[in-house]
Amino acid sequence: MRVHVLQLKPGQDLKEELSRFVKSNRMCAGYILTGVGNLRKATLRFVDEDIKTFNEHFGILSLDGTLSSDGMHIHIVISDKEGKAIGGHLKEGCIVYHSAEIVIGESENLRFSREFDKRTNFKELRVKKIKKGL
Amino acid sequence: MRVHVLQLKPGQDLKEELSRFVKSNRMCAGYILTGVGNLRKATLRFVDEDIKTFNEHFGILSLDGTLSSDGMHIHIVISDKEGKAIGGHLKEGCIVYHSAEIVIGESENLRFSREFDKRTNFKELRVKKIKKGL
Amino acid sequence: MRVHVLQLKPGQDLKEELSRFVKSNRMCAGYILTGVGNLRKATLRFVDEDIKTFNEHFGILSLDGTLSSDGMHIHIVISDKEGKAIGGHLKEGCIVYHSAEIVIGESENLRFSREFDKRTNFKELRVKKIKKGL
Repeated sequence: MRVHVLQLKPGQDLKEELSRFVKSNRMCAGYILTGVGNLRKATLRFVDEDIKTFNEHFGILSLDGTLSSDGMHIHIVISDKEGKAIGGHLKEGCIVYHSAEIVIGESENLRFSREFDKRTNFKELRVKKIKKGL
Repeated sequence: MRVHVLQLKPGQDLKEELSRFVKSNRMCAGYILTGVGNLRKATLRFVDEDIKTFNEHFGILSLDGTLSSDGMHIHIVISDKEGKAIGGHLKEGCIVYHSAEIVIGESENLRFSREFDKRTNFKELRVKKIKKGL
Repeated sequence: MRVHVLQLKPGQDLKEELSRFVKSNRMCAGYILTGVGNLRKATLRFVDEDIKTFNEHFGILSLDGTLSSDGMHIHIVISDKEGKAIGGHLKEGCIVYHSAEIVIGESENLRFSREFDKRTNFKELRVKKIKKGL
């Protein structure tokens, strides 16, 4: 496994920077190992498709998800200034407050792609094993 | 570290499929690196032993835990359609809604087992290092 | 990547034991891969600096963060006996109830340090790549 560390600065958009990082590294099969930091604005999509923007400060408590140049699927848990936790699908519009530290693993013998699945109406993950030595 | 990717389909039971996957891979020392997806029903055990089933849709925000053929200890964070996060010990009865993507690491030089500990009244993790070359 | 497993016992302080473990292993670039367990008391710092202690039982749902002898940055998600999730920055004063199981990855070709950043008023992570063979 290759390990990447992405550090973000105040004002950067968490999802946009992750997407840029994944593309500039031509990442084929990445997954978030750990993620911490904070936000000064959060935009999340919840399970039945509602999207909501919160204009307040949050801690980033956890980041989980799979990453490839073909698409990302990232869920985040954040908590407000009283500790209450909310979370959902990471959307553009999560703006870093002080910092974000994200550690990403990448498997060079796997390849992730996303294909539209008419049963779920979403692009779902496909995983291929790559033979070593090719 | 060996990396496994488990993808689940609508209607599958998250804990049962994880257990089947761990056993069919004869996994000795696994741990969840990342986990995302959604559920259409969730059954969780909370800290003082209450078990509760929720018949609604949730996003899977994070999955953490240790896995071996000898037992699994998995905690999950989920959020409802308004983003409110709850979580606890993963029980049978967490049914996948659209999909679940779980990335698992496995250390081939470690061996996890679970032994009953009378102080805590639970089976607690034991970790052994395996010499390489055996 | 080297993998470490830390197991904690009833009454131990989660942050103090993590700090001791990181120092005794002279860890230069660690990150939490997975973390589960429970607490009988929790002390967390929230996003706008409030610190609060909760004298009740919680499940540890997730642990994310970066670790080095030069400093740790760890966020935790916990849930109470009804499943409600809260979380924040891990402080001293999170006392293990029955157990905690924490799996840590360490990259031997990276070096983490923390330097004071006057823009954010915090010690922020610095990452260096170490040439192999040195």
